[in-house]
Amino acid sequence: MHAEFKLTRRVTFAETDLAGVMHFSNYYRWMEEVEHAFFRSVGLSVVQQEGDVVYSWPRVITSCEYFAPAHFENEIELHFMITDLSEKSMTYEVAFSKGGAKVARGRTKAVCCVMKDGTFRSTEIPAFILDKLTTKR
Amino acid sequence: MHAEFKLTRRVTFAETDLAGVMHFSNYYRWMEEVEHAFFRSVGLSVVQQEGDVVYSWPRVITSCEYFAPAHFENEIELHFMITDLSEKSMTYEVAFSKGGAKVARGRTKAVCCVMKDGTFRSTEIPAFILDKLTTKR
Amino acid sequence: MHAEFKLTRRVTFAETDLAGVMHFSNYYRWMEEVEHAFFRSVGLSVVQQEGDVVYSWPRVITSCEYFAPAHFENEIELHFMITDLSEKSMTYEVAFSKGGAKVARGRTKAVCCVMKDGTFRSTEIPAFILDKLTTKR
Amino acid sequence: MHAEFKLTRRVTFAETDLAGVMHFSNYYRWMEEVEHAFFRSVGLSVVQQEGDVVYSWPRVITSCEYFAPAHFENEIELHFMITDLSEKSMTYEVAFSKGGAKVARGRTKAVCCVMKDGTFRSTEIPAFILDKLTTKR
Repeated sequence: MHAEFKLTRRVTFAETDLAGVMHFSNYYRWMEEVEHAFFRSVGLSVVQQEGDVVYSWPRVITSCEYFAPAHFENEIELHFMITDLSEKSMTYEVAFSKGGAKVARGRTKAVCCVMKDGTFRSTEIPAFILDKLTTKR
Repeated sequence: MHAEFKLTRRVTFAETDLAGVMHFSNYYRWMEEVEHAFFRSVGLSVVQQEGDVVYSWPRVITSCEYFAPAHFENEIELHFMITDLSEKSMTYEVAFSKGGAKVARGRTKAVCCVMKDGTFRSTEIPAFILDKLTTKR
Repeated sequence: MHAEFKLTRRVTFAETDLAGVMHFSNYYRWMEEVEHAFFRSVGLSVVQQEGDVVYSWPRVITSCEYFAPAHFENEIELHFMITDLSEKSMTYEVAFSKGGAKVARGRTKAVCCVMKDGTFRSTEIPAFILDKLTTKR
Repeated sequence: MHAEFKLTRRVTFAETDLAGVMHFSNYYRWMEEVEHAFFRSVGLSVVQQEGDVVYSWPRVITSCEYFAPAHFENEIELHFMITDLSEKSMTYEVAFSKGGAKVARGRTKAVCCVMKDGTFRSTEIPAFILDKLTTKR
């Protein structure tokens, strides 16, 4: 059983481009925002200090498929779903929709790492984090 | 035969994040920058006015795989390669490297559209554009 | 009497830089976000269609003073206050604070314009907009 | 005698907004880019490691006045000029122009700091840096 989480986010002016729609790169920032909001909702941070160790989740691969444009001030629903967990990595998808209509769908694979000064070493997902990723709320 | 293009780009301060490396979403902005620089290098713009019509290239799907972090002021080489052309769409890849070492590899599929006030209608790639996309320089 | 408005906003990961704090340029994006949220709160948009005419508010001058850094996931309170209104322009300030402590203070002077295809012509603030800017809520 | 530096920069697609022009917040990123390019041009970095110490330049106050919009793919000239130096701080201005016509003018006051884990302690500008800031090239 994997965790899910929902968030609503409004397109800001600075996120639009001259085509009058949200710039495609901003979907990736939103994917990260809903991921981090999920972590907070279970009492964690995506940058989790635990004693001397700081856990973080660098991305291995990201992708996004675009179905319809999002315009300035549109309210977009983000549905975050963890779709796969391995010993050291998490894959999640985010479904973006507007009033029930599909806008985009993104996917991120991130690896659990110990972070230090801009370097990263992959590590097994600690039990206290894994527990939160596998609980359907 | 498909077009290729190369560009060097330096990581700016604002593009880094608290992990000390370039934020993963910025690779997508760089993919677009090298694409647009390619268009300029063949005498076109990615937003091409032709009489009354404005051609543009909304993204259908984008993805990026990350191999190594890029740090502040690193010089990154971007190698843009068109890998597929259909009647209405173009797919390209961008290989990111640093001193010969792989940093990331991205892919974009974009559809040729007539753009008007934030709406887009897909269209056959016009011959004067297609010609530039298929010329190895 | 001038309008005021408050908003709380959390620092996202992408908004931080390698110094571990929110990048100074993002305060300007936040100033705009609280301004636009104010417009929505009074039933308007900062890009207001009225018949054939689209009103918008290009910036004439912006500034920001920084007192203390904002870190990832900090909740920052934004206090938006219109401080001056002339026939064609609005000046507002935004006080940024964290748990009551001052973080930054920004100011924007924006001119009411009729917007068309990336060109702007300044115009008197229409009464239906002015009314909202001068009502203390 | 204060240092000066020039740079040309092209407006990218992601930097534009729905008004069809460069978003006003991006001028601040450009001000930083030309500042950092100046530091590199004199053999330094804005994040300068010197033994155990890392010097950096957090902003105290920034401002920008806007005269004319910058459009997608416009080439903008940036003229960086240090206008004031005190024991611990540097003030510089950046004149933005397009084919000789004024686009914007920004100003930044930054304080020389020793940086550690997202905290900053102001310090006298070290002689090896001050020397570069006061040499007209």
